[in-house]
Amino acid sequence: MQEIKVELTKNPKEKPAPGAPLPFGTIFTDHMFIMDYDLGQGWHDPRIVPYGPIEMEPSAMCLHYGQSVFEGMKAYRAVDGRILLFRPDKNMARLNVSNDRLCIPQIDEKFAEKAIEKLVSIDRDWVPSGEGASLYIRPFIIGVDPHVGVHPAHHLMFMVICCPVGAYYPEGLNPVKIYVEKNYVRAVRGGMGYTKTAGNYAASLKAQDEAEKQDYTQVLWLDGVERKYIEEVGTMNVFFVIDDEVVTPELQGSILSGITRMSCIDMMRHWGMKVTERKISIDEVARAAQEGRLKEAFGSGTAAVISPIGHLKWGDVVMEINKGEIGPVSQKLYDTLTGIQWGKVKDEFGWTVEVQ
Amino acid sequence: MQEIKVELTKNPKEKPAPGAPLPFGTIFTDHMFIMDYDLGQGWHDPRIVPYGPIEMEPSAMCLHYGQSVFEGMKAYRAVDGRILLFRPDKNMARLNVSNDRLCIPQIDEKFAEKAIEKLVSIDRDWVPSGEGASLYIRPFIIGVDPHVGVHPAHHLMFMVICCPVGAYYPEGLNPVKIYVEKNYVRAVRGGMGYTKTAGNYAASLKAQDEAEKQDYTQVLWLDGVERKYIEEVGTMNVFFVIDDEVVTPELQGSILSGITRMSCIDMMRHWGMKVTERKISIDEVARAAQEGRLKEAFGSGTAAVISPIGHLKWGDVVMEINKGEIGPVSQKLYDTLTGIQWGKVKDEFGWTVEVQ
Repeated sequence: MQEIKVELTKNPKEKPAPGAPLPFGTIFTDHMFIMDYDLGQGWHDPRIVPYGPIEMEPSAMCLHYGQSVFEGMKAYRAVDGRILLFRPDKNMARLNVSNDRLCIPQIDEKFAEKAIEKLVSIDRDWVPSGEGASLYIRPFIIGVDPHVGVHPAHHLMFMVICCPVGAYYPEGLNPVKIYVEKNYVRAVRGGMGYTKTAGNYAASLKAQDEAEKQDYTQVLWLDGVERKYIEEVGTMNVFFVIDDEVVTPELQGSILSGITRMSCIDMMRHWGMKVTERKISIDEVARAAQEGRLKEAFGSGTAAVISPIGHLKWGDVVMEINKGEIGPVSQKLYDTLTGIQWGKVKDEFGWTVEVQ
Repeated sequence: MQEIKVELTKNPKEKPAPGAPLPFGTIFTDHMFIMDYDLGQGWHDPRIVPYGPIEMEPSAMCLHYGQSVFEGMKAYRAVDGRILLFRPDKNMARLNVSNDRLCIPQIDEKFAEKAIEKLVSIDRDWVPSGEGASLYIRPFIIGVDPHVGVHPAHHLMFMVICCPVGAYYPEGLNPVKIYVEKNYVRAVRGGMGYTKTAGNYAASLKAQDEAEKQDYTQVLWLDGVERKYIEEVGTMNVFFVIDDEVVTPELQGSILSGITRMSCIDMMRHWGMKVTERKISIDEVARAAQEGRLKEAFGSGTAAVISPIGHLKWGDVVMEINKGEIGPVSQKLYDTLTGIQWGKVKDEFGWTVEVQ
């Protein structure tokens, strides 16, 4: 395994005061991880250096052709002071899935996981301890050849940056308002929808922006082929509790394989619940709502963990779900997942990894 | 109109020797144009400065979420020494179409065109004079907020960089080999296919890479819904001459509105040819080929202008088009378009703009 060189900052930044608001993704820690790739040489020169701007050629490929993948994960300060990561192996495996689709060379997953642990360990004082707060970790890879031409890059950078973030819902778990997007499509089978790549998020900006202007939190995406099957909600996976079945769209190429999604599925099955990954149309959801069989709906993702959906609008059809209240499944998943993440609940699944 | 500040380089680079090979997109001129956008302030501080790397925060939005659009255009050194741009107003109009889809604030098209003319004028000695050579111009806009969050950027940069490029086909117009892509999809209606945004090119990398490994130049994309209608070829629009009709896929949201495409259509109609923009399936093309009615096929784009397709493979079906030779329509379009661009043929359409 390559040695990671460490250059500590000589000018540590002032850390946010305990309890101070931590707006998502705006405050960065003292250090970052960088590793370069060159064709013929492979990944080389892993290093942890002071956080700061990088030099970039205006012709750098990622700026023009979007050869860029990322991951999102968190480090949690457990109640006993330990710092825990949540299923980091799954993030690194998914990063390599994204890499493959974007013609980015594979990384050594174990090594990358160790590099992230080392970075978090060095910046451990930045892991916040407030209720619901955590350290958001953003690994990403960009193609940086100074070359205006549509080709896989020969020189790339793998970087990891971290930001302390506050509770996603500072006033507690709050159901959100979502509408079904009819004009825009996020991704289609054959495309890049199953990867965490820049273009998928670019494609979502306009719908998201219009949703916010109409006082909705996010949109529910439908498939790009038949425009009827449910895909994701905003930047989260989505679940529906219909009668005694929990349904979530199956992974078929256009949906991200969320790590919170897979954890929810594993956990609910462990609890003996019936969980089905299958095609589910917006008509089916609307019909279930009308017949009083739609008990709950919620999104799952790293940022918010669980986001109950209280209000779902599909054209003229408005569904108030569980009277706009949090349902028992959403609440139990949220409590158990965050309980494991913050070390309050026994981790029966072996999902947490302690940063040494 | 805002004043463009100019800071000339103190260290002009050595220009490529006349006749030296100019690999596409790798050599950059002495200067670049930059303009910033800030929410509440609008576009400001237009300036031409020495070409060089920019400082970028690792959290810059464009690196993670692909909020990035661009254009591609060329300046040509006419036979009489004038420097000509080809329909730059169309590029700027399309840039604003891309901007709208990507939640990027509109630019002043006239001003941007003037800025590009000024940049080319300052770097006019970089416009090569060799046969088929030109100055490739790359305007692009990127969101650069140092913020890890999926939202339209509040701070953006509009930049223009230029590179002298040699003839696309140094040994003359040469038919290319293309195969029909069956696994990957470039874009789908409701997505971003009609824009020049980073993610569309990222989505194309893997198919393009696999094509090159199989000794094909590019792929022919099919639509993402029915997987049968023809969209584009690689990074170009595509035309088929079937009997006495020239057919090109209609613009319906997933195809780029190429400026060479519209110029080809205008020109052929001016010549009295029957040109139809409509849905065209790969089955129809294969049937026409089998029945001897497929006379020609060619791609159109800024880089190569016209690329005749001599060989088209669709699964087990191999179509040799016009015996692998350049057809009369391709040749006439190429000669006329490049004739206008290099000032050898009278510009009846008013398409060229002289750089003063």
